[in-house]
Amino acid sequence: MSETLLRKDRFALPEGLIYLDGNSLGPLPRSVSAHVTEVVQQQWGERLIRGWNDAGWMAQPGRVGDRVGRLIGAPPGSVVLGDTLSIKVYQALAAALAMRPERRVILSDSGNFPTDLYMAQGLIDTVDKEHTLRIVEPEAVADAIDDSVAVVMLTQVDYRTGRLHDMDTITQATHDAGAISLWDLAHSAGALPIDVQGVGCEFAVGCTYKYLNGGPGAPAFVYVKPDTIERVTPALAGWLGHDAPFAFDAHYRPAMSIERLRVGTPPVIQTSALEAALDVWDGVDMADVRAASIRLSERFIQEVEARCPALTLASPRDSARRGSQVSFAFEHGYQAMQALIEANVIGDFRAPDLMRFGFTPLYLDEQDVVAAVDVLQTILDTERWAEPRFAVRNTVT
Amino acid sequence: MSETLLRKDRFALPEGLIYLDGNSLGPLPRSVSAHVTEVVQQQWGERLIRGWNDAGWMAQPGRVGDRVGRLIGAPPGSVVLGDTLSIKVYQALAAALAMRPERRVILSDSGNFPTDLYMAQGLIDTVDKEHTLRIVEPEAVADAIDDSVAVVMLTQVDYRTGRLHDMDTITQATHDAGAISLWDLAHSAGALPIDVQGVGCEFAVGCTYKYLNGGPGAPAFVYVKPDTIERVTPALAGWLGHDAPFAFDAHYRPAMSIERLRVGTPPVIQTSALEAALDVWDGVDMADVRAASIRLSERFIQEVEARCPALTLASPRDSARRGSQVSFAFEHGYQAMQALIEANVIGDFRAPDLMRFGFTPLYLDEQDVVAAVDVLQTILDTERWAEPRFAVRNTVT
Repeated sequence: MSETLLRKDRFALPEGLIYLDGNSLGPLPRSVSAHVTEVVQQQWGERLIRGWNDAGWMAQPGRVGDRVGRLIGAPPGSVVLGDTLSIKVYQALAAALAMRPERRVILSDSGNFPTDLYMAQGLIDTVDKEHTLRIVEPEAVADAIDDSVAVVMLTQVDYRTGRLHDMDTITQATHDAGAISLWDLAHSAGALPIDVQGVGCEFAVGCTYKYLNGGPGAPAFVYVKPDTIERVTPALAGWLGHDAPFAFDAHYRPAMSIERLRVGTPPVIQTSALEAALDVWDGVDMADVRAASIRLSERFIQEVEARCPALTLASPRDSARRGSQVSFAFEHGYQAMQALIEANVIGDFRAPDLMRFGFTPLYLDEQDVVAAVDVLQTILDTERWAEPRFAVRNTVT
Repeated sequence: MSETLLRKDRFALPEGLIYLDGNSLGPLPRSVSAHVTEVVQQQWGERLIRGWNDAGWMAQPGRVGDRVGRLIGAPPGSVVLGDTLSIKVYQALAAALAMRPERRVILSDSGNFPTDLYMAQGLIDTVDKEHTLRIVEPEAVADAIDDSVAVVMLTQVDYRTGRLHDMDTITQATHDAGAISLWDLAHSAGALPIDVQGVGCEFAVGCTYKYLNGGPGAPAFVYVKPDTIERVTPALAGWLGHDAPFAFDAHYRPAMSIERLRVGTPPVIQTSALEAALDVWDGVDMADVRAASIRLSERFIQEVEARCPALTLASPRDSARRGSQVSFAFEHGYQAMQALIEANVIGDFRAPDLMRFGFTPLYLDEQDVVAAVDVLQTILDTERWAEPRFAVRNTVT
């Protein structure tokens, strides 16, 4: 299985580097640079304004959206790319509130990524002060869904610990209470088998620069359940969500498709990097990715626990309750991570004490995992992490 | 003057093509492709997640914003890049309404680009139904500013005709009435000398893919008057507008700078194209650009009116009331524009009958203008535009 899944040669990873941060920014697929150059030199350079028609730029957000859609169980025509995850959260939340005008609560949990919570609060502050953002512990979500809740907004995989929500159960509870279901798949798309259509959620959003390897700042995606799209009122009523953008009507009339979630002029060059990057997923079955990811993660946990006693597992031990990352708590985690990175093993750190490692079976194998733990063990055994240079804080960690 | 201003060799324009559509999508500056390749291969490919720190990605929206700022009279630290113009309009409008909570009117004009109007309507529909978008004729704006108006939102240059608003006079009238001033500089930045600080408007927004040659889908910019920034409540409260994004606080606390207008993860690759493209503006004085643009535009009008009697000037005749484009009305304008494009003279068409031509002195000279009219005259004299293939409609015109 992993013989066909592993495809290291399709990524331009630096020699000797072990990359365990594909959950934050995926590495460069080899096919990307030539395609971006073609878009810049041949499409923009030679076709100029004509590129919007004859190079397919205008259709790009939907075309690439369909390719992302295949990886999350979305039917063609139900996913569109654009903007950032924050913006897509806002669009989905605003639409959800409009679909439940008599309800006043956005329910989320403390494991959500902060920007989702900020965008919800910003929306509430903009709409009125009557709505409330209710934040509960992840384990308390199901019991907190009552008939005051307009929308349940959760990130499936906790960015710190990898804890995994059960999409099926929570979506069912959401619908049983008459609320709208919005899932953030930032740490799920390209990491886990997802079936948004089977789950039945109205909205799903996510980013494409993590497991999908779209490059720094690659656009977000938004899925809308097909039978819901015509009830979605776009709060961000941009011209490219109009039914006929080039009619330049004075009044907005939303497209009768997922296109109504588009806003402004899409980032063609940025998206072209993603479009080429998605080639590495051709023929990949997400069930195989999941199986391999669990195998790598389990091996990592086993090796670290056997050899690095100073570290404490901060992720769920049960692989069925964990995404494609593993976090360990360590008091000197920041310094240890800097020392690891210097030694060409890249993970990342999340305050206050989490060392975070992502497992991505398209370009990682068990030898990489063992080799990474070898380096980690040496850093801990020799206390190399205590060297002063590792305490210098970066602006982005 | 134009000897130093004209720099055709810095643009990768196809041989034999005359490009009069830089007001829609600027051509490719030669320096762009190598820089984008470096960002993809060396920065993303080799630095991976570390690029956010050591390749300067996180600071890019402000760093490039300052370079755009110089061209619109904005002081350093008052402009930031990101998202699309539609999103930036929404942010500025939402902030303006929050600054005038007792007022209920967004005032704009029928010459505004539709997406600005759509975003305003979308915001109003989201906030409540009590606010109103009041749209008047461009000439009636000054008289329509009364004490019900929270914000006056105008695009300085009309996208169809090039008609130019007087920013000074209207901003003064706006402030006299106690309202907030928001200018859309989509067709101004890189085309005209703009002095946002001297004008005193609270907000200005614009795009960078037209006269600034940033490439298809290049990010938008937003300017906030420095003494206003701390009163701006971000409706789109994304994590990168947080005072400390990587603290991952549960609560949003906006940055005490223009950074609070940032939202999500910025499109690094897309913005790197713009960053390299801006090199062509080094040492350029916008007063020289304006003088040359007027000279080119006047010559174009004179040649067309002398040789193409079927066309009627649709732009203001007085160059002081016109931006850097000229439009002519012609009943068969769509077909004539398609015939022009086939003959390697690129302008564009706006319904119902406008042929639109942009004048960009960095890569156009008077010979180009005369040569373009030669081709246009031939198409009209021979009625080549009537050939059936020119009547086929593109999706984007």
